[in-house]
Amino acid sequence: MSDIKKAVLAYSGGLDTSVILKWLQDTYHCEVVTFTADLGQGDELEAARPKALQFGIAPDNIYIEDLREEFVRDYVFPMFRANTVYEGEYLLGTSIARPLIAKRMIEIANLTGAEAIAHGATGKGNDQVRFELGAYALRPDIRIIAPWREWDLLSREKLLAYAERHGIPVEMKHRQGGSPYSMDANLLHISYEGRHLEDPAAEAEESMWRWTVSPEAAPDAAEYVDLEFEKGDLVAINGARLPADELLALLNQLGGKHGIGRIDLVENRYVGMKSRGCYETPGGTILLPAHRAIESITLDREVAHLKDDLMPRYASLIYNGYWWSPERVALQTLIDHTQQAVNGWVRVKLYKGNVIVVGRDSKTDSLFDSTIATFEDDAGAYDHKDAGGFIKLNALRMRIAANLASRKS
Amino acid sequence: MSDIKKAVLAYSGGLDTSVILKWLQDTYHCEVVTFTADLGQGDELEAARPKALQFGIAPDNIYIEDLREEFVRDYVFPMFRANTVYEGEYLLGTSIARPLIAKRMIEIANLTGAEAIAHGATGKGNDQVRFELGAYALRPDIRIIAPWREWDLLSREKLLAYAERHGIPVEMKHRQGGSPYSMDANLLHISYEGRHLEDPAAEAEESMWRWTVSPEAAPDAAEYVDLEFEKGDLVAINGARLPADELLALLNQLGGKHGIGRIDLVENRYVGMKSRGCYETPGGTILLPAHRAIESITLDREVAHLKDDLMPRYASLIYNGYWWSPERVALQTLIDHTQQAVNGWVRVKLYKGNVIVVGRDSKTDSLFDSTIATFEDDAGAYDHKDAGGFIKLNALRMRIAANLASRKS
Amino acid sequence: MSDIKKAVLAYSGGLDTSVILKWLQDTYHCEVVTFTADLGQGDELEAARPKALQFGIAPDNIYIEDLREEFVRDYVFPMFRANTVYEGEYLLGTSIARPLIAKRMIEIANLTGAEAIAHGATGKGNDQVRFELGAYALRPDIRIIAPWREWDLLSREKLLAYAERHGIPVEMKHRQGGSPYSMDANLLHISYEGRHLEDPAAEAEESMWRWTVSPEAAPDAAEYVDLEFEKGDLVAINGARLPADELLALLNQLGGKHGIGRIDLVENRYVGMKSRGCYETPGGTILLPAHRAIESITLDREVAHLKDDLMPRYASLIYNGYWWSPERVALQTLIDHTQQAVNGWVRVKLYKGNVIVVGRDSKTDSLFDSTIATFEDDAGAYDHKDAGGFIKLNALRMRIAANLASRKS
Amino acid sequence: MSDIKKAVLAYSGGLDTSVILKWLQDTYHCEVVTFTADLGQGDELEAARPKALQFGIAPDNIYIEDLREEFVRDYVFPMFRANTVYEGEYLLGTSIARPLIAKRMIEIANLTGAEAIAHGATGKGNDQVRFELGAYALRPDIRIIAPWREWDLLSREKLLAYAERHGIPVEMKHRQGGSPYSMDANLLHISYEGRHLEDPAAEAEESMWRWTVSPEAAPDAAEYVDLEFEKGDLVAINGARLPADELLALLNQLGGKHGIGRIDLVENRYVGMKSRGCYETPGGTILLPAHRAIESITLDREVAHLKDDLMPRYASLIYNGYWWSPERVALQTLIDHTQQAVNGWVRVKLYKGNVIVVGRDSKTDSLFDSTIATFEDDAGAYDHKDAGGFIKLNALRMRIAANLASRKS
Repeated sequence: MSDIKKAVLAYSGGLDTSVILKWLQDTYHCEVVTFTADLGQGDELEAARPKALQFGIAPDNIYIEDLREEFVRDYVFPMFRANTVYEGEYLLGTSIARPLIAKRMIEIANLTGAEAIAHGATGKGNDQVRFELGAYALRPDIRIIAPWREWDLLSREKLLAYAERHGIPVEMKHRQGGSPYSMDANLLHISYEGRHLEDPAAEAEESMWRWTVSPEAAPDAAEYVDLEFEKGDLVAINGARLPADELLALLNQLGGKHGIGRIDLVENRYVGMKSRGCYETPGGTILLPAHRAIESITLDREVAHLKDDLMPRYASLIYNGYWWSPERVALQTLIDHTQQAVNGWVRVKLYKGNVIVVGRDSKTDSLFDSTIATFEDDAGAYDHKDAGGFIKLNALRMRIAANLASRKS
Repeated sequence: MSDIKKAVLAYSGGLDTSVILKWLQDTYHCEVVTFTADLGQGDELEAARPKALQFGIAPDNIYIEDLREEFVRDYVFPMFRANTVYEGEYLLGTSIARPLIAKRMIEIANLTGAEAIAHGATGKGNDQVRFELGAYALRPDIRIIAPWREWDLLSREKLLAYAERHGIPVEMKHRQGGSPYSMDANLLHISYEGRHLEDPAAEAEESMWRWTVSPEAAPDAAEYVDLEFEKGDLVAINGARLPADELLALLNQLGGKHGIGRIDLVENRYVGMKSRGCYETPGGTILLPAHRAIESITLDREVAHLKDDLMPRYASLIYNGYWWSPERVALQTLIDHTQQAVNGWVRVKLYKGNVIVVGRDSKTDSLFDSTIATFEDDAGAYDHKDAGGFIKLNALRMRIAANLASRKS
Repeated sequence: MSDIKKAVLAYSGGLDTSVILKWLQDTYHCEVVTFTADLGQGDELEAARPKALQFGIAPDNIYIEDLREEFVRDYVFPMFRANTVYEGEYLLGTSIARPLIAKRMIEIANLTGAEAIAHGATGKGNDQVRFELGAYALRPDIRIIAPWREWDLLSREKLLAYAERHGIPVEMKHRQGGSPYSMDANLLHISYEGRHLEDPAAEAEESMWRWTVSPEAAPDAAEYVDLEFEKGDLVAINGARLPADELLALLNQLGGKHGIGRIDLVENRYVGMKSRGCYETPGGTILLPAHRAIESITLDREVAHLKDDLMPRYASLIYNGYWWSPERVALQTLIDHTQQAVNGWVRVKLYKGNVIVVGRDSKTDSLFDSTIATFEDDAGAYDHKDAGGFIKLNALRMRIAANLASRKS
Repeated sequence: MSDIKKAVLAYSGGLDTSVILKWLQDTYHCEVVTFTADLGQGDELEAARPKALQFGIAPDNIYIEDLREEFVRDYVFPMFRANTVYEGEYLLGTSIARPLIAKRMIEIANLTGAEAIAHGATGKGNDQVRFELGAYALRPDIRIIAPWREWDLLSREKLLAYAERHGIPVEMKHRQGGSPYSMDANLLHISYEGRHLEDPAAEAEESMWRWTVSPEAAPDAAEYVDLEFEKGDLVAINGARLPADELLALLNQLGGKHGIGRIDLVENRYVGMKSRGCYETPGGTILLPAHRAIESITLDREVAHLKDDLMPRYASLIYNGYWWSPERVALQTLIDHTQQAVNGWVRVKLYKGNVIVVGRDSKTDSLFDSTIATFEDDAGAYDHKDAGGFIKLNALRMRIAANLASRKS
């Protein structure tokens, strides 16, 4: 292992990645570059700098970056163009952040001449796969250090002991067991796994949720919000055009206030087991039906159905860590192509956990033609008699089969 | 046209089908058999009998039947086994009723020696297709009379004039314009189309909704409900085993009380235009996530994904009227096969429009294995190191491609 | 019908379309624009001009155009990028010509101010659908005249009688019954339907085939041919770069000489019946496996599988006449995107009906890496031990299920 | 490793598995059970018995079994019901044998109380995956020994040295390098990989092929063969009903004689690399188009298309080793359901590498209706005018879109 001279570590500044930092130095005797990214998780990122310095990291080797706009614009929004949902329920909040982190780690490794990257994802989860598939796809000779698959600090007690032995500060909450949940957060969502949730029969505790009030605690008055879309992407809320990350932050605030976006599910991990997860995705939970609604009047039926048929596959690719794969890029090409005409606005009503689409329109691209769909006289726009031929030819193969069946019986 | 001697008419007893009855007698000079089915639409069906008699229909030619249990057991529940949703939102409440009506009309035609069936669906909608594809598939030589595609009574004024001219009683509401909406109801849903809804930008009026209170008007206290599944079908609510139709009726009552199941969308009709529809599906809106939840712990991942991949196609088949097609039957064979192990219970919390799955378990068939999924020490049930090989081989093709790319640049 | 003042007729100069020309003049009393296209069918196109003049068509209204290069470059080759085959066997030779004819007819209609187009396709076939869907998609208000669906000349006798009555010259072969087959030809193929072929149990007569010798009659010596591809398209044969149509013509010549490309099948028409067809596609039958072969070393596995999964749908779209639909264009976007790296050469051996790929290589884009695939020592390029972890995690869900099953039994 | 007391070894009696046998005894100090199966590979199986005895294997621990009929009936034929081809070309001859061997090894392990199985597949190939996924699915606690991933005998020289050191007889051909190819054979095919083939640009040597003559060397006279199908399976050849394995053996003989079934391709392995393979599948190459032909007249269009859409996925499952997975079983349920009506006969003409379907019929289940498909007068079986409505409604969505586009431009 001694051939690794420099490694880029995804460093949050928290206990786990601080232990990893120290362990890397002691085990690999390598120079460590720390990378701390702001994806909207809500932490104070600059706090990571003095911590890194304490471990003797050179100032030039400390990268702290605000990636929020890039994250939402180039990852979250492209994914929403496909109305992406994994296994019918999960909005992929964790999955979609990993490709950006992987990409930036490789870029920093290239910049700093590092041979390796290191991350704090466990050996049972999806995140290790997402980080590493991305890294390998972007730099095939990258070396990857996954301490949770290598070391013997697999219990919390051993980890704390190691920290104390090496003078790594341990906050009181960790000593007391800390949050009972394994959590991950970014602008799209916050996730909870582990502990109480490991019994899928048991209801999640109200105290677990952090970003949303409960529907019961949400305001008694509904709020209407207008969302404007261009080429399938949200561009304005209530008439205000904002950068992508600010739009999503505003949706999160609106959703959180109205008790919107809690999800409680059992999902199938890529590594083969089922796992119970709870998620808060307030903004995404508003965005998804709104995007469907603007598509409902601007997309051709068969294009929409093609997208629906491909969506589960696209969702699995993202869930499984294949963002940087050529098949994801090929699908994205198709998806993006379909969004040219997805322009217009959608009005949603937010109320105690509900996101209700109440109106949608497109000045430029609506395929809704009331002169044809009307139940009233349509002045000849549609000839009712055409339907007879349409049905008869569609029925022909079944009639031939039924004829055969009746001859046989 | 004079070669049709007897026709079976789908007869509701209302104004439209009464006019059709009379028009059939006058235009085709044929004997008419009326068929009135109770699918849970909530009308008093026996009222159709004296009306039919008034038109001179022979008592033996009046069929009034309660099909509610068959409807839910053999049509609604099999469809829910696939988590079926059309275009991401529509639960197919109207679509799923048509195949049963078509089948029963053909059976009655066979029983009574009729050459034809007649229905009151318009020439612009999906229902004509569903009735007729079903009828042709079940009896290839059936003759079909679709008055809305044949006659000249295309405006409400002409229809009313015809009714008055022939002594057909017209209720006051029809004279005044009646309900502003075209509606259809059965145990799964009630639908609204037309009039105000023809502007997809405009919010539906609160007064339109009939089966559900608004979320705002729903009780302030949440209600927990336990749903038990066997082979993918709901079999009991809160411990009470009931026939399929009573289970759905109870779910409807629960959902309606809690403001659950309103949907407002623009859908793509099979005949080619977009149309705005509003639906109330209170029970179905509870059943869908509950079924997904019980599958989430009992279905294998790849089987679940296979079902998800096929679902949009299956949904389109039902929407487009192909229930009686061989391809729907083939898909159903696969779907039903997968449901053998879908046994267990799900707990949902109902609150002001929300259906929240809070727990799920299966004594006999849970594939959730907490000894493997745990974040804690798993006593060797899972070897973290396996993940390294898993990732490396999954990455291999991308690494080879990246190697090539780097040699080229 | 008198509101049509000018119509563009797809005119071959043959008997059928000459009768249609006359019938249009007599029935619609409209000005007729004739359009005769060279798609490589092998007829002398200029012969259509004097015939049209005889019917009084104005010289400016006679369009005779060589579309061969456009046909192969913009229609045939894009289709082959997807390895397109309908129902496992049919190379879509007729289907792919229709969109170009439809497009050009609409362009000529726009140029000449015609309100209508007319074609000679029958009411039972796919071609009427392909012409008309294309025309409607490109000009929604186009009027379409399909004489075979309108007139009463449905038997050959009536047609001949009409021709003689109106002084339309009837060649001796028509009087004697002409070719017993309904045929269609262009650079991609020649098709045969009807007559003897209407019994699918009966072997086609050797005398029917026109473009290929029988394998038995083909040369006793094999011929090797090198095909070069760029971005998925054939660009050179045996080192000679040629325009697309000349490449296909050369492949046809090679295939025809070696008895390659006869197909005898029963296909499912879009209008609902099965039909027996025989086809000669000599060049296409060489091109298809060659294109697959160059893809086999240049395309990523998952991209190739994605294409394979989508291919039947894409093939059906073309077969059914949806070339000009938005969903075909969306799929084409994906397909074309994948062909960027499909560069290299393929060597095929042609011998008595066989097309045998014997070698393939790409200097720039081969993903075949012999240092990894070798059975010999690979100097550490691949770690065998990774496979253990790969297999174990892929097996995990099945092991959990088997554990459950063994507990139950 | 000492906790394994007994292991079942897939034992061919050849050099490699003899070395493995000895290595197992020396390394694991365990009792070895040898399993030698006749899948039609053409070796003399009883020769394995004295060899096993020489290694001290107890007579009761030597299993030599003829699995040919089970192999063709329960694995090959079910696969052909789906017209299964991997990546457009490979008939899965090796892949389909592995699940049966895995199943039988687990059964023998259960019978003999063995904790482990061992196989001679390499660490780079698909076969290790197929054996092990099958084994884990059938017995989740099975221990698997894959010597090629464990030992240091990775070159042929080391293997031969080990053999000589332990007195394992080495045939002259091995000393001289033996066959230059890695081969595998069973009733469905024989495969060649490695050596000369590792350059995908180079043509395979004629001397490599073992089961088929070259097309050039095949008889100058064509041979017609009648194949009879019941429920999608071949049941008779030229009127002779035979067990499944004898049918396939006869097809192999016919194909081999006529130079049929050679395939030369580059495939994508599940473990991530591309590999060049040559295959002889004489019988399968006849069976595939024949099965398609009988389906072409007996299967409904949409059912056939559904099968075609699912086929690549089904093929990948078999290729990747998921025969014993629940998703393969679910797909098989659908596939088998569709074959109920696939009854009838197909006539093929075999000539110098060509398999030409010349006729097909089904007395009981043909959906080919010449009274409808005919180009002649059909006495009203089909109304040409229906096509107009069919086309217009199918075009409606595209016309609406074109209207919008023309308003915008």
